[in-house]
Amino acid sequence: MALRAALRNKCGLSSLLSQLSSCSSHGGVRVSPAFIAQRRNNSSSSAVKVDFDQSTGVAVLHMQSPPVNSLSLDFLTEFCINVEKLEMDKSCRGLIITSSQPKVFSAGLDIMEMYGKSPERCGVFWKAVQEMWLKLYSSNMVTIAAINGSSPAGGCLMSLTCDYRIMADNPRFSIGLNETQLGIVAPFWFKETLVNTVGHRHAEMALELGLLYNPSEALKIGMVDQLVPEDQVLTTAAQTMKKWLAIPDHARQITKSMMRKPTVEKLVSEREADINNFVSFITKDSIQKSLRMYIEMLKKRKG
Amino acid sequence: MALRAALRNKCGLSSLLSQLSSCSSHGGVRVSPAFIAQRRNNSSSSAVKVDFDQSTGVAVLHMQSPPVNSLSLDFLTEFCINVEKLEMDKSCRGLIITSSQPKVFSAGLDIMEMYGKSPERCGVFWKAVQEMWLKLYSSNMVTIAAINGSSPAGGCLMSLTCDYRIMADNPRFSIGLNETQLGIVAPFWFKETLVNTVGHRHAEMALELGLLYNPSEALKIGMVDQLVPEDQVLTTAAQTMKKWLAIPDHARQITKSMMRKPTVEKLVSEREADINNFVSFITKDSIQKSLRMYIEMLKKRKG
Amino acid sequence: MALRAALRNKCGLSSLLSQLSSCSSHGGVRVSPAFIAQRRNNSSSSAVKVDFDQSTGVAVLHMQSPPVNSLSLDFLTEFCINVEKLEMDKSCRGLIITSSQPKVFSAGLDIMEMYGKSPERCGVFWKAVQEMWLKLYSSNMVTIAAINGSSPAGGCLMSLTCDYRIMADNPRFSIGLNETQLGIVAPFWFKETLVNTVGHRHAEMALELGLLYNPSEALKIGMVDQLVPEDQVLTTAAQTMKKWLAIPDHARQITKSMMRKPTVEKLVSEREADINNFVSFITKDSIQKSLRMYIEMLKKRKG
Repeated sequence: MALRAALRNKCGLSSLLSQLSSCSSHGGVRVSPAFIAQRRNNSSSSAVKVDFDQSTGVAVLHMQSPPVNSLSLDFLTEFCINVEKLEMDKSCRGLIITSSQPKVFSAGLDIMEMYGKSPERCGVFWKAVQEMWLKLYSSNMVTIAAINGSSPAGGCLMSLTCDYRIMADNPRFSIGLNETQLGIVAPFWFKETLVNTVGHRHAEMALELGLLYNPSEALKIGMVDQLVPEDQVLTTAAQTMKKWLAIPDHARQITKSMMRKPTVEKLVSEREADINNFVSFITKDSIQKSLRMYIEMLKKRKG
Repeated sequence: MALRAALRNKCGLSSLLSQLSSCSSHGGVRVSPAFIAQRRNNSSSSAVKVDFDQSTGVAVLHMQSPPVNSLSLDFLTEFCINVEKLEMDKSCRGLIITSSQPKVFSAGLDIMEMYGKSPERCGVFWKAVQEMWLKLYSSNMVTIAAINGSSPAGGCLMSLTCDYRIMADNPRFSIGLNETQLGIVAPFWFKETLVNTVGHRHAEMALELGLLYNPSEALKIGMVDQLVPEDQVLTTAAQTMKKWLAIPDHARQITKSMMRKPTVEKLVSEREADINNFVSFITKDSIQKSLRMYIEMLKKRKG
Repeated sequence: MALRAALRNKCGLSSLLSQLSSCSSHGGVRVSPAFIAQRRNNSSSSAVKVDFDQSTGVAVLHMQSPPVNSLSLDFLTEFCINVEKLEMDKSCRGLIITSSQPKVFSAGLDIMEMYGKSPERCGVFWKAVQEMWLKLYSSNMVTIAAINGSSPAGGCLMSLTCDYRIMADNPRFSIGLNETQLGIVAPFWFKETLVNTVGHRHAEMALELGLLYNPSEALKIGMVDQLVPEDQVLTTAAQTMKKWLAIPDHARQITKSMMRKPTVEKLVSEREADINNFVSFITKDSIQKSLRMYIEMLKKRKG
């Protein structure tokens, strides 16, 4: 059932990009055809904005890297620095992650970080992706994803690391680990994060077909925990956070660690091998060629 | 969905105790504010009553330790001796576990066994909890939990060890591993038993939030297998038992062992370390303090 | 819920055989009471028929071993040779497995291969069962089971190895690993295949009770992915195949391997021990006796 429905969304990133383009043309925001290649020129403090409320102990991290919060090396670096700061701050007990960009939570890994780059650079990039996952998946804070837009690939991964996922109930939004549709492969720790969330069988289909789910489908298989109207995503996240913070921190943290430690430790112990795997895969001629074709396709679509 | 509903029950043990107090005042049974500290003075044969029907090969074990079948060291010792006897009796093929106490299956571990006790005594207590789990989770008998009342924490664990769970469809009853709400932590084998039953994601949320589910919610996530009207729990258990006993014992037993052996062996091999973990955690000043506050709160409520 | 419904089907193989007998008497096909013992006399190329369409890259393998596609040593050998040929053919990207026999996909392992045979012969047979599983579960092709009839035991296993399962929506058909009902035990790799498909808890109940599910129940627990009217099973399989083949092969294959490798490697490394286990179990006097009684029962039913 879910498969058939999800397959309707199967054009994947193309569909998402098309949707975003369409939105932007209506919305008056010009979106460059190679927008996923854009690097932010602003200062390192502007790709994300953190609002920390000392009275509640809850921080809200707004991703605000136009147009679609692509996870570039710069973005990931800034993101991780901010999460690390909050993690070290004993007064911060909860973190809500959301997007300031319209219609998208995060479009995932920046494809331009993987195209035409040196192996060394690719390795540095991948290490930053690992770092983002490690920081979030093992965070001592309560983490809630306030998914107020589409969240493919790396954007979905970021959501999956959180303790709870609230998604805007807009059927135009989609979420999923759709890497195979681009000819690339989600590594084992993406896979294990997904298996831990939706179980082995749904993960198998989702990953092999690179499925993107609309909110209802995502809720049905457990990829997200709750749907609310678009304008209530953030307020619901704040309310839900209160319930999580009612639990004594030490008991919740030990329990969270017990649930996630095996998965975290596996990446920690295989981190270098995982980087090598990624670099040797992504720098293959055949993979570079398909990435180039994909980028050309995006340009033509714009043209 | 389940979360939001379950959170309504989140006051946890307090809620349960309040409910039980309320019941008892209506029912005319006086419940001491420190009832969970009560130790039975009766002979060792009276905390549980076993009815074994030779003609069917099925034993019904009634937990009858007022007021709420708390799992004290004495209770666990008597419980395990009785289960062991049945296990050794080749003519006994099936075991139904139920409660003779009104409105509660078992309130779980006796908090007074964990408060103000010597490390040695805490270790002895924990070993008895392990023993109960080991005996039930690896039993060669068909085990069915006839859950005719609330079943938090250790009571839930006992239910989860069984092959099948039938719960009374009374929305005032609840079930769940709500340890974090008390500031304590369910150990890895509680966790694995729950993961084996409801999957990784539901276990993660249930354990981190210490969720108590009403019967409908418990059924929905698979924490129990079937709901029936309160007065049909035991008869349905007996009928279900017939179906399980229709399967050749040796084939069912080998299959059960195949499913559960990895989890059982993990505790067997880490038993001492698990006791040490528990003792060093529970005897911490901070944990003892929060247990004391909890007990005070119960007394005040009574007062 | 699923249990109670599934238990209605619990008479298992007997029920299936009865149903098949009944069908055959209506349908005019004579079914020998010992039909599961029948060995095909035809040439080795006729137990299965393969239609390979070069233009689509999809092969359809029709099992056509009357009356019920029992998995005998001869059948398995021919089956594996054909799958191997397709696997080696780079132009073949997808494989649909279906049955040419009315009302049955495959009745599973041929009981006569397990009764009254030498340990050596039993070992050879078991190795062929392993081979079938290994070839299918780790196939680089997209594999779809077009389940157009009942599929107990080994027939269910074959279905479970596929990437996707479409079943005819006929309530008289059933599917499940019902080995315990015959007093035999599904080995660990049957178990892990089922756990990977329906999760630990459903697998536990399904295997311990030897449950046979009707199509609706099978869909509900995820044992099959989709139900369609009987006459649309094959066309739906072909349509679904197109969607799977839209994913770049290399990305899908690496992902599939990542999901299934741990399970495959476990059997590969324990293959000899698994054969020894099977042989020593199946050649036990008690097991042989119960197989004999089962075969007698079938003969009497016919008589």
